[in-house]
Parts: sequence; C-alpha cells; structure tokens
Amino acid sequence: MAKIAPDPSLLIDGGESVRRPLPDTLHVNGGDGTYSYTRNSYYQRLAANVVKEKINGAITMKLDVEKLSSTSNTICIADLGCAVGPNTFIAMQDLLDFIKHKFKLQCPNFKTLEFLVFFNDQPSNDFNTLFKSLPPERPYFAAGVPGSFHHRLFPESCIHFVHCSYALHWLSRVPEELLDKNSLAWNKGRIHYTNASNEVVNAYASQFAKDMENFLNARAKELVIGGMMIMIMPGIPNGMPYSQLAASLMYDFMSYSFMDMANEGLISEDQVDSFNLPIYTPSPEEMAALVEKNGHFSVESLELTNPASSVDGPVDINAWVTHVRAAMEGMFTKHFSSDTIDEMFDRLTKKLSKFSDQVESGYKERTQLLVVLIRK
Amino acid sequence: MAKIAPDPSLLIDGGESVRRPLPDTLHVNGGDGTYSYTRNSYYQRLAANVVKEKINGAITMKLDVEKLSSTSNTICIADLGCAVGPNTFIAMQDLLDFIKHKFKLQCPNFKTLEFLVFFNDQPSNDFNTLFKSLPPERPYFAAGVPGSFHHRLFPESCIHFVHCSYALHWLSRVPEELLDKNSLAWNKGRIHYTNASNEVVNAYASQFAKDMENFLNARAKELVIGGMMIMIMPGIPNGMPYSQLAASLMYDFMSYSFMDMANEGLISEDQVDSFNLPIYTPSPEEMAALVEKNGHFSVESLELTNPASSVDGPVDINAWVTHVRAAMEGMFTKHFSSDTIDEMFDRLTKKLSKFSDQVESGYKERTQLLVVLIRK
Repeated sequence: MAKIAPDPSLLIDGGESVRRPLPDTLHVNGGDGTYSYTRNSYYQRLAANVVKEKINGAITMKLDVEKLSSTSNTICIADLGCAVGPNTFIAMQDLLDFIKHKFKLQCPNFKTLEFLVFFNDQPSNDFNTLFKSLPPERPYFAAGVPGSFHHRLFPESCIHFVHCSYALHWLSRVPEELLDKNSLAWNKGRIHYTNASNEVVNAYASQFAKDMENFLNARAKELVIGGMMIMIMPGIPNGMPYSQLAASLMYDFMSYSFMDMANEGLISEDQVDSFNLPIYTPSPEEMAALVEKNGHFSVESLELTNPASSVDGPVDINAWVTHVRAAMEGMFTKHFSSDTIDEMFDRLTKKLSKFSDQVESGYKERTQLLVVLIRK
Repeated sequence: MAKIAPDPSLLIDGGESVRRPLPDTLHVNGGDGTYSYTRNSYYQRLAANVVKEKINGAITMKLDVEKLSSTSNTICIADLGCAVGPNTFIAMQDLLDFIKHKFKLQCPNFKTLEFLVFFNDQPSNDFNTLFKSLPPERPYFAAGVPGSFHHRLFPESCIHFVHCSYALHWLSRVPEELLDKNSLAWNKGRIHYTNASNEVVNAYASQFAKDMENFLNARAKELVIGGMMIMIMPGIPNGMPYSQLAASLMYDFMSYSFMDMANEGLISEDQVDSFNLPIYTPSPEEMAALVEKNGHFSVESLELTNPASSVDGPVDINAWVTHVRAAMEGMFTKHFSSDTIDEMFDRLTKKLSKFSDQVESGYKERTQLLVVLIRK
C-alpha cells in the first residue's frame, strides 16, 4: 500500500466542526464523484486504525458498562463530525464490537442490549448520501443529527459514548483579527499560521481554546456520568515548531501557490490575505490543560501516535492531494472560483512532488492525538 | 382561501410508508422547485389543522405526562413519514406546546423538560432539504431517522409520543396478484382498486392489514407504556362505495388518461396494466378491528372528520393537481417517462376541470381519519 499521508493534519476527516458563522463552507465533498469524500477517505481510515486497539483497551479497562446500563437496555453512541461515510460506519461497527465484548466480560448475563447511533455533522453535510450508504444489515438503530458540535446537540444525560475523529482540529470560525489590517495578527500573504507571527499563532490558539471549552461543556451536559469520549485528531509534539509538521508544508505550498497566482494577476492579493484555513493542531500538553480547566472529565488516556505507521512505500502525491481536496474543497469554494481552485491544486501537486523528500520526512513523527475521557 | 382538496385521499402527505420492495419510488418531490413538496404542501396542513384541537384535547385528557417523565426529563417524539417540511415542523411545534401545557397542568413544579424529535422517512427522502429547513430557534433537539416505519426504527421503550400524518395510506408494496394475468385480481386497464373487482379490492385490503400489523408491532416495542400515538390519514365512512370518494375520481381519471394515451399509441397497454398506485383508504371499523387484533394499544379516539372544513370557495383544480403531483410524482417516475407523466397530469387537469361539480361534491364528506392510541 503506497503511503499517502505522513502527517495526520493532512488526513482531514469530518470537516464539520464549524459553528454557525461559517455554516455552509466547511463540509467534505458530498455525492460519489471523482473528488467526493466517499471515494477519497480511505487513508483517514488507515490513520484511525492505528489507534483501534488502544480504543478497545480503553473500553475494556475503563468503561463501566454495568453502570451505563443500570437504567436502560439501550446504549446511545454519537459520532460527531461523521461526514458522509464510509469511515464513520466502520468506526461505529468497531465501537459496538468493543462495547459488546466488554458487556460479555462485565455482565455475562445481560441479554437484550440495543444500540442507537447518532451520526452528527453540520446541516450542510450530505446526509442523503450518508443515509443511503448505511450498512443494510447494521446491528444498531441509526439517526442523523444536523448541527455544530460546539453547541448542544442532545438532551441532558442521554448519550453513553461519544466518538469524534478528525473533526476537532477545524475551528468554529476564522479569528477576526487575522482579517484586520490594523492588527498585529493580520495574516498577510498566508492562509494559515504556519511560519506566521506569534500574534497569528496566538489568535488561532485562542480560538481553539474557546471552541474546546464550548465543546466540552456541551458534551458534559449530554454524556451520562461514567460515559466515555474518544477524540482522535492531529497533534504536535510539545515544543516542535509548527513549520516542522508535514501539514505545514501543505499549507505553506497552498499559500505559495495562491501568491504565485496573485503575482501573475490571476487573482488579487486581497483574496489571499482575506482567506485563512480554520485548522489548528494542539499539543498533548495544551489539550490536557484545556480538559483540566473545563473540569467535567477525567483523562484516561492522552497520547501521540504515528498515523502512518500502518502504511509503507513511497508517498503517492497525486492520491494524497485528491484526498485532501475531497475533505477541504468546500472551504475554498465560497472564496475562490472553481478555476482558481483547480489551478491551485495543480500547482500544489507539482510543488509537493518536487519536495517529496520533505513530505516523506514527516513520516516518522507521532502527530496523531488520541484522547480518552470519562465524564465524572 | 380557495378550496383545493375536498377529499383527504388527495391531500397526499408523507409518501414514505413504503418498505424495501419499493425503496426509491415512493417519496415526495425534494428540493424547492415548482413541483417540490416544500412549495406544494400547504393544503395538507389545512387538513391536519382540522384535527389540531382534537389532538390537544386527547393530550390534555389522556396523556399521563407524570408517568412518562418518571425516569427522565426528556420527552422523545417521532414524526413518521415526515417528508421534507414545512408541515412536520408546524405539527411538532403544536405537539410540543400541547405537551408542555399538559405538564403545567399535571406537574406544575416540573422544571427542566427537554424534547428530542425524531423526523423519520424513507432513506430516499430529501433529508438535506429537511435539515436545512429546520427552524433555527426550535425548542427541541432534532434528529433524522431514515427507514421504513413498517419495521423497527428505534430501540425498545425509548419513544414517548408518535405522530404519523398522511403516511399510513401508502402501502408498503403493490400486492403481487394485481400483476398476475392468471389471477382474478389482475388489475387490467386500471391503476387503483376504484371501480375494480372485489378480488382487486381484497388484495389491497389484505396488504393494508399486513402493513398495519407490522406498523403496530414495531411501535408497540418502541413506545413506552402510557405513550401516545396519533395517526391522521384518509378514511372512508363504513359502507360507502369507494367510487363515491372524490379521491376515486382522481385515480379513475388518471387511469382513463393513461388508457387514452395507450389507445393513441403514446404508451403501451402493458405499461398501464403493470402499474398500480399503492394507496389504500380504510374505514374506521376496519382500522378499529386491526388495532384490536394487534392487542398492544387502547383506542382513545377513532373518528372521521371533514378535512376541508376549514377552507371554502371553489376548487382550484390547477393548484390541486400541482399539490398531488408534488406528493405522488415519485411513484410514476420509475415506470413512465417524464413526457408521459407531463401529458397524464395535463389530461388529468382537463378532465377534472370538466367534472369540477363531482369534485366539489366530495366536499361535505368526512373522509379524514383521526386515531388516538395509548400503548397499554
């Protein structure tokens, strides 16, 4: 299997963690065409596979299913930022298997267990494709929940398990100061905080902290006491400069491609200055501090893993860019014409092909964050 | 307000009660174009309005909300056959208001009530449109549930209230014997049981009985003891010949239009013989017998009402046919070309315009069935 995504920030899944200020721009490509997420999300799944057994272990060791089933025979699971499949279905099937296994261990006489899985994403997500792709013989009842996970999605204490894979790195909005020419955080000539000033980095970090606080508060209301939450997302080792992430190479080359096009008169510089990718990669220490500050959850596990450890062979740049496009294109379409986007992705592919050694170098880094929390 | 639909069978809402044998054919028109259900469902709402106060009365008198809220502060409501809106949102808001009112009466000290509304329809329903149309300030959490309501949709005992408006008259499938040339129930030259042989009528009635048994068994599992189910659908007074329903005029004129087109060589007779509308209109007595045979529900109310009693003025045939088309077109599109469907609806409009007196005569009939059940 060709290695395609050496850095988890590039395995951009979900794409739906954005609240109302940007409701229609941040969703993965729907349908099942060439650039659809349905056809181009296989590598995200490989990255998630790396932590599969760790999740099984957390459920086996830490999930008190006897407590969860004390009032009802139904276990309610929410997948937040589910996109259009098929990864969400595979992840839910794995979770069900792990939870059933734990029931057999802890409650061998338990008989009539039923599961209700809530598939959540932004209202602009292609739920029609999601629903038509549901496994026909699924061992659970299925519901779709449209809305931002930075707000409440469910009634109080009605969810037993939350799963959120490659979605929390999407900020709910672009920090306003990035667009203010009079601010030190004005992000001129770039579309991301990589290689930008400290003020720009801080604006991103501050927005991520606010988003996580909203996210954790909402989930604290919805999860029953003892309920588990699994979060998988891009992460950066504490102290590593952002510019050493392979993802940064991608964002920088996107910036360079746009700026080249501006210099050639194909687009205006203003168009580049006024666009910023709302994507943030926290360190484990940063995430731990946010969870502790929130106070509603105990941390059962919080670690970096290598998302590409299950794949080998050379990086296939074309396939990698197609995957990234399936997940990210929706963000560009409100700001740039489709010709401009085609051109940018063409240039991006060429630039990345020239620097494949640098892409490759990200391969050995542990840049996927796995967080396991219990509602206390 | 011009009177548009003198018979409830013509106020065809939902259109989603069909199980897997016909998964892609029976859904209302999606989107928001000229023939969309979103734009052409206002009159269905007027018909439902006729029973609004009766539903309020049933909730006030019969729904034991103290019992329902004994284990949780969340009330779960399911709207089965919700289509794409906006009628489902109006109906749910009314229900919430009625239930909250009952809480104030019965449990004046109850404080933290929350609602979760499940919007159900076939997987082929346009859930994207439904989700984008959800009222932004809705006082409930919302989820979409794709699937046939002739099967289980929810875990055991997790629903407190079921609402099903203008959906149960859709059969889950066309009875097979209608298509068998060697059967006495072969429905030659017609697309419905109106004015057909007893064998054809019995085949329809038998399919409806099977569908209702499946529906009631599934709901019996899902509804908590004491939970309420409201069903609104076309009905026929006991003993009235089907051919006296205004709906019958519609179906017969559809048959005649198709047969005229077959005689003119525009389509083949076989095409007409092999197509049947899976729509059935039960009498109150028939419905009461089916509920009693099932045994899981007590009948709190079962009565016929006049769906057109809130509208007056002459029938607007054009608008009426457009409404019917928005709800029913999906059934024709798998069997006939779009040109054929256009032509049939043109001919139908002309024929109905000539017989507007007969259409008008259905106006005074009580042909909308309201059923209120409690899970016992």
